[in-house]
Amino acid sequence: MRKILIIGAGKSTSVLIDYLLKKSEVENLQLIIGDLEVKNAEKMVGKHARAKAISLDIFNSGEREKAIQDSDIIISMLPARFHIEVAKDCLSLGKNLVTASYISEEMKQLDEAVKKKGLVFMNEIGVDPGIDHMSAMQVIDRIREKGGKMLLFESFTGGLVAPESDTNLWNYKFTWNPRNVVVAGQGGVAKFLQEGKFKYIPYNRLFRRTEFLHVKDYGKFEVYANRNSLQYKNIYGLDDILTLYRGTIRRVGFSRAWNMFVQLGMTDDSYTMENSEEMSYRDFINSFLPYSPTDSVELKFRHNLKIDQDDIMWDKLMELDIFNSNKKVGLKNATPAEILQKILMEKWSLSNDDKDMIVMYHKFGFEINGEKKQIDATMVNIGEDQTSTAMARTVGLPVAIAALKILNGTISTPGVQIPITKEVYDPILKELAENGITFREEEKEYLGYNPFGEVGN
Amino acid sequence: MRKILIIGAGKSTSVLIDYLLKKSEVENLQLIIGDLEVKNAEKMVGKHARAKAISLDIFNSGEREKAIQDSDIIISMLPARFHIEVAKDCLSLGKNLVTASYISEEMKQLDEAVKKKGLVFMNEIGVDPGIDHMSAMQVIDRIREKGGKMLLFESFTGGLVAPESDTNLWNYKFTWNPRNVVVAGQGGVAKFLQEGKFKYIPYNRLFRRTEFLHVKDYGKFEVYANRNSLQYKNIYGLDDILTLYRGTIRRVGFSRAWNMFVQLGMTDDSYTMENSEEMSYRDFINSFLPYSPTDSVELKFRHNLKIDQDDIMWDKLMELDIFNSNKKVGLKNATPAEILQKILMEKWSLSNDDKDMIVMYHKFGFEINGEKKQIDATMVNIGEDQTSTAMARTVGLPVAIAALKILNGTISTPGVQIPITKEVYDPILKELAENGITFREEEKEYLGYNPFGEVGN
Repeated sequence: MRKILIIGAGKSTSVLIDYLLKKSEVENLQLIIGDLEVKNAEKMVGKHARAKAISLDIFNSGEREKAIQDSDIIISMLPARFHIEVAKDCLSLGKNLVTASYISEEMKQLDEAVKKKGLVFMNEIGVDPGIDHMSAMQVIDRIREKGGKMLLFESFTGGLVAPESDTNLWNYKFTWNPRNVVVAGQGGVAKFLQEGKFKYIPYNRLFRRTEFLHVKDYGKFEVYANRNSLQYKNIYGLDDILTLYRGTIRRVGFSRAWNMFVQLGMTDDSYTMENSEEMSYRDFINSFLPYSPTDSVELKFRHNLKIDQDDIMWDKLMELDIFNSNKKVGLKNATPAEILQKILMEKWSLSNDDKDMIVMYHKFGFEINGEKKQIDATMVNIGEDQTSTAMARTVGLPVAIAALKILNGTISTPGVQIPITKEVYDPILKELAENGITFREEEKEYLGYNPFGEVGN
Repeated sequence: MRKILIIGAGKSTSVLIDYLLKKSEVENLQLIIGDLEVKNAEKMVGKHARAKAISLDIFNSGEREKAIQDSDIIISMLPARFHIEVAKDCLSLGKNLVTASYISEEMKQLDEAVKKKGLVFMNEIGVDPGIDHMSAMQVIDRIREKGGKMLLFESFTGGLVAPESDTNLWNYKFTWNPRNVVVAGQGGVAKFLQEGKFKYIPYNRLFRRTEFLHVKDYGKFEVYANRNSLQYKNIYGLDDILTLYRGTIRRVGFSRAWNMFVQLGMTDDSYTMENSEEMSYRDFINSFLPYSPTDSVELKFRHNLKIDQDDIMWDKLMELDIFNSNKKVGLKNATPAEILQKILMEKWSLSNDDKDMIVMYHKFGFEINGEKKQIDATMVNIGEDQTSTAMARTVGLPVAIAALKILNGTISTPGVQIPITKEVYDPILKELAENGITFREEEKEYLGYNPFGEVGN
């Protein structure tokens, strides 16, 4: 039996484990699920004969080395910062490794040694990063093989709520880590390229510089820019490209409303507020507004952000019950971002029968035989239930498929890598499609950034 | 002869040196002016018999120690980060020290040793910090001595252009370090207290949450909040105060226009722009605006910030020639803030006959014998010429006066300190007044933050 060690039995691993267990007879696999809390691992394993739960403290080097030594390939589903110790053991013990996280600087530095030993360390093979890399590179390589020259690449992903569960005015619920949503966009200026021009959007303008997208059968969405799109020049080999833009998808109107919080400073995670524990929601809001002995917090809020009383943004605030003076924050030494997250989680958490949705949208502009063309590729995936969520599937399936293909030698080029080579993306995308994760492609007229086809006058 | 060593012969030391030279016969002083560039020091010294210029590299510990050993008191006019080495030598060689800079953490840690040796290390004795401390504490102590209880303290300072030199639409010219003006407000959220409520203003709202001030004979000004007003609770012993607010003074309309740069991200100093050297001013502006094949940079700017064509803000931009496509930035790997500074320096630099102006405004609210009262104290100082600027005078005079009083033993309480005790502020403020730096006090009705005396309805 070939042993696959999966480290970290979080919620996101259910689909991953399920996939591998289904293949375990045919492929002669045994799964070892290791978690600090053995109960978490046991829950995932159930009574399956080919799976075993173990207690695994990754900070105990003896335990960690033993578990890795006993296995044929390792899948690390730990938070990104914990991969490196596992990776070092995999290197010294000669085991292949799969993670869904961005390659860290430390991980990158193992590349030479990993190559020398002929090992495969596959990273960034979840959904974003992951499916985005594979689906984009497949189209880009196809365009190039036909002699096309890339002019434009735009890529957008969003973790959203499924249409049937889209029941609040924000058209949004937390389907993944809420903290990441609250602090999104704060890591530095958003940089990208539009028609050869470098563009920069500061945080305070990010949610007002959105663009629209239409997805067949799903309607209209909006996009705000991700931090650094320019790095994809190198990663995808798009050296002479004119337009390079990556972004995050939301339903239309989310960003305009979210911007209220940004403008007032309620998403700031850099300082703690005085008396945060005893503060009411109303006090919290009032902290970001000028003092007045007479005017209401509501009127100050409206006046400060120039919100008309019949603006839907106001209804969105009301829905959050954010002016309530009886609800206490109840968090000690909390940052504005932490308090806002708490308030939002009361309203934006998924209920038991809610489903999530992943939307991915790529645009490829290119020139071929003197003609400009565009291909749009879209993928929508909707969760089945609270276990087999769209997020767990689109992260777990590519990880599982990659692990098995590496184990079987279908993917064998050594090195610390991400899934941007044909050897990797072709078989994985094929199998993802068999599991319902497919892209719809459409050829369009190339409009670039002149969508109305107008000339200035 | 008693020797005073002045380290750093920058532009700001002219008034300081001039004051001490005038006293040199009566007080039996010799001045030693040390600078890395001995020519700078020689310029300051002229042919005065009681002054000597020396070459002094403060990173050469031998040179530094010798110069300090030879003197009776040391005035360090170096940039703040360089004081500490001088301070350590002063401590070991048993010399008193005067600086105009904020006390650093390292400097603070010398306190115990400085006290043990009976030395005076006086810091923050320029204008802001400096005259603000002294003039505020004199009034606060007076109120307390009479049995009053402090309710409100607000304090504002601005380095501006004198009315007779106020010749541009921004009503502003650089009278001090331009860089500090461009990045002002970026060090973290502005925190303060209003009527017992903690208030927070993020950077992107800072220049829209201004308050107005009237100064007799000088008209209307506006104020934006400084970073952390709360620390003055400890510094001034204002533990139970309800309102505590410090800010920076500008002419009305400056902040609303400056906010255009803030909103677009043009004051960001955290990243360098691509191809900054070859960029035109117009390209620079366009980097912060969406791409369009047809619309002008001007229209995009107006639309993005919703500026009407007859808004004075637009004329302010025109005055800066900021849309010029022929003027090159010419700075390699420059940040937005560095580029903006360059553009502004072309228009906002003082010309030879321009004069500067320092404005300081304190409000003291207090309760005494069951009655609420308010005292407003204002100081305006206008420069004489490009040498005896208001800035050089209001920084140099208190430093010089303090040094002489310490030398003469009028100020003798040992320790690393700032000028907040009667022993220090009384004699210095008296002598500043003799030199034309005076405060006008006015008793007012206490209005707190209910300036219109209204009750909500």
